[in-house]
Amino acid sequence: MRMYDIIKRKRDGAALTTEEINFFVDGATNKEIPSYQISALLMAIYFNGMNERETLDLTFAIRDSGSKLDLGGVKGIRADKHSTGGVGDKTSLVVMPIVASLGIKVAKMSGRALGHTGGTVDKLESIDGFNVEMDAKSFAEAVDKVGFAIVGQSATLAPADKILYALRDLTATVDSLPLIVSSIMGKKLAADDDCIVLDVKTGSGAFMKTLDDSRKLARMCVDIGKKAGKKISALITDMDTPLGNAIGNSLEVIEAIRTLKGNGPKDLTELSLALSDEILYLCGKGTREECRIMSKNAIMSGRALDAFANMVQNQGGNRDMIYNVDLFPRAKFSRSVKAKESGYITSVDAEGYGTASLLLGAGRRYDGERIDHSAGIVLKAKTGDHVNAGDEIAVLYSDRDKFDEAEEKLRLSTIIGERAQKYPLIIERVE
Amino acid sequence: MRMYDIIKRKRDGAALTTEEINFFVDGATNKEIPSYQISALLMAIYFNGMNERETLDLTFAIRDSGSKLDLGGVKGIRADKHSTGGVGDKTSLVVMPIVASLGIKVAKMSGRALGHTGGTVDKLESIDGFNVEMDAKSFAEAVDKVGFAIVGQSATLAPADKILYALRDLTATVDSLPLIVSSIMGKKLAADDDCIVLDVKTGSGAFMKTLDDSRKLARMCVDIGKKAGKKISALITDMDTPLGNAIGNSLEVIEAIRTLKGNGPKDLTELSLALSDEILYLCGKGTREECRIMSKNAIMSGRALDAFANMVQNQGGNRDMIYNVDLFPRAKFSRSVKAKESGYITSVDAEGYGTASLLLGAGRRYDGERIDHSAGIVLKAKTGDHVNAGDEIAVLYSDRDKFDEAEEKLRLSTIIGERAQKYPLIIERVE
Repeated sequence: MRMYDIIKRKRDGAALTTEEINFFVDGATNKEIPSYQISALLMAIYFNGMNERETLDLTFAIRDSGSKLDLGGVKGIRADKHSTGGVGDKTSLVVMPIVASLGIKVAKMSGRALGHTGGTVDKLESIDGFNVEMDAKSFAEAVDKVGFAIVGQSATLAPADKILYALRDLTATVDSLPLIVSSIMGKKLAADDDCIVLDVKTGSGAFMKTLDDSRKLARMCVDIGKKAGKKISALITDMDTPLGNAIGNSLEVIEAIRTLKGNGPKDLTELSLALSDEILYLCGKGTREECRIMSKNAIMSGRALDAFANMVQNQGGNRDMIYNVDLFPRAKFSRSVKAKESGYITSVDAEGYGTASLLLGAGRRYDGERIDHSAGIVLKAKTGDHVNAGDEIAVLYSDRDKFDEAEEKLRLSTIIGERAQKYPLIIERVE
Repeated sequence: MRMYDIIKRKRDGAALTTEEINFFVDGATNKEIPSYQISALLMAIYFNGMNERETLDLTFAIRDSGSKLDLGGVKGIRADKHSTGGVGDKTSLVVMPIVASLGIKVAKMSGRALGHTGGTVDKLESIDGFNVEMDAKSFAEAVDKVGFAIVGQSATLAPADKILYALRDLTATVDSLPLIVSSIMGKKLAADDDCIVLDVKTGSGAFMKTLDDSRKLARMCVDIGKKAGKKISALITDMDTPLGNAIGNSLEVIEAIRTLKGNGPKDLTELSLALSDEILYLCGKGTREECRIMSKNAIMSGRALDAFANMVQNQGGNRDMIYNVDLFPRAKFSRSVKAKESGYITSVDAEGYGTASLLLGAGRRYDGERIDHSAGIVLKAKTGDHVNAGDEIAVLYSDRDKFDEAEEKLRLSTIIGERAQKYPLIIERVE
């Protein structure tokens, strides 16, 4: 079998065989296929697509490209929630404690911030002492004992995804449905949870800009998950505006804690509860109505917050910060951004907000860059809100006294007009 | 400017700007752009094409990627003939001596054999002592003094073409009209001849399998040549069957010499005269009728053969071999291939014949492989001929007594049926 022939066949619109897809993924993982042949195939896939069987094969090949997460010693049902990525999305920090407090085991692997998107690992590292480095054995023990643990992405889990994603990112082949699906599901299936709930974002701040594409993505992911024997569903949710009011690491953790205390922003609370319900329902905890009552109770009783604090403490973090958010360090400098005109916020560019936060020091322009954990943005007005000239629309935080570029980016990303339409947050369920 | 954005724009169907194309070709030449980004762009060009202006820009960028051939000291008009490649195509060895004997300066740069196609340099090296290594100064002096010289491809001439072609060859992006046109014309324009005649092959043994594609290729090349200030035309010619009867290095040189003596195969003679006429006419030597008489006279008078012998002698080759082809070494072994059934040869796969010759030792499977100069095939029957079972259809020559695989390939590439249609050799002129 030759990579050349595989590229040519996909270029000419053929469906690749299972053997060809395995040959490609194995060769990419072992570095036996040169990157210029990989990127040529990725571009041919961008143009000619892949059918369902090919996408399934590619997903399984990525899943099997490294070692599987071995959590054999963990008792009980394991669940995970995965978001396709958005700005200000801290739902993991709310949903995971809720379901963990209800006996679902959570073995979470999370990424770091890059570009305009944040990373759960970076957010948690804003808690003093918190450590995401754990070997496989300690991770399994932590999940079994505390019920909830979070580590960084493992290099040995689905390594093909890292290799393919890095090339896609450099060759304009990210926006391809079969490549997105196989990347998401290849990684998720390698983690081998029993139950997976996907939060598929749609809108200006998301991968998938149209509802139609988001539906296709959700449908394909759910179908593949089922074929792999998983309990799985997806919510398609709006990402035309950032979720909640906080963007930036410690700011988002503080907002998540407030939500776990029942005092969070409406949209973040609504989505977190919906995702929690979905996990509980899939895990067989009861009817949808019963699951909703359980999630709400987990917050009202304080047990979800305790689950979060237990996880933090178990990973070396300062437990007290969870109960008293004043203990989080504050940024040295801040700037209030005020509306220059009156009107409704008709639309915002969520990606632009993410970039503004990056400019304040909350993100990474390149892999490995140091992060300012207290930097970021707190929004005072969001899409649909009415503002008068002079009203505060956001506060920027940073340890560097440099706000002009970020403020400019924020302003350019905020359209104020005569009327505004608010979109529903949760658009539909795919199961 | 970022290569990522250039890939994305072409992926989305945009026409690249002149600046973008120059950035890409410069970066590829200087190795500043990684090969995986180059191949992704090549695949995007494969799918979305390039308009005339982009193709022209790409051609000029390739032309200007290295040093131009400096033959400033050469007096008179310089001409070149370029074939898009075929099997058994030794017309250069006939056409160049004809026009050189009529005062046209010929500074020929030629390639080596690879895969199923032969190379003029390898063919000439079957002449004892013949040397194609010459520095730029000696080359210019040889052209000026003898009127005709041949060297191997220069590494400093249009180096971008080598880099792009090597990647296209490995990523299934060879068959793209703008990439083929810019590769041919980028190299040709860097050689800076005054007059260029293209022999665009069409049919099973050629790059371009259909007449329509061949017409487009010829039209684009001629238009670009004119825009670069060249006198240029193209003949579209049939490559459904090998040209002449000989395939293989010394066998082809011997056939070219016979043709220069007036005793060559009808098809090779016809095409060589047509290409010679075309060069003479473009160079202003007279009317088309006058040019035809001049070409024929060059053969009948023996002056074309003398021009060939002078070139050979000037480059260290044994002049006597040109006048006495019995001096060429013969292959140690031969095998006669006889028809197993009676009928007309309805079609042959010229590429299959090239591969059979490669299997006999006449070609290279990989760059740098040693060649057996006396190996090859002499055809005794070609498309349109009637054969009876037992008639000899070809003789195979090799220094290894291994003929089975090559005979099998030759037989599989020869279809004998109830009737046959002969196509015209010269299909049309594009000017």
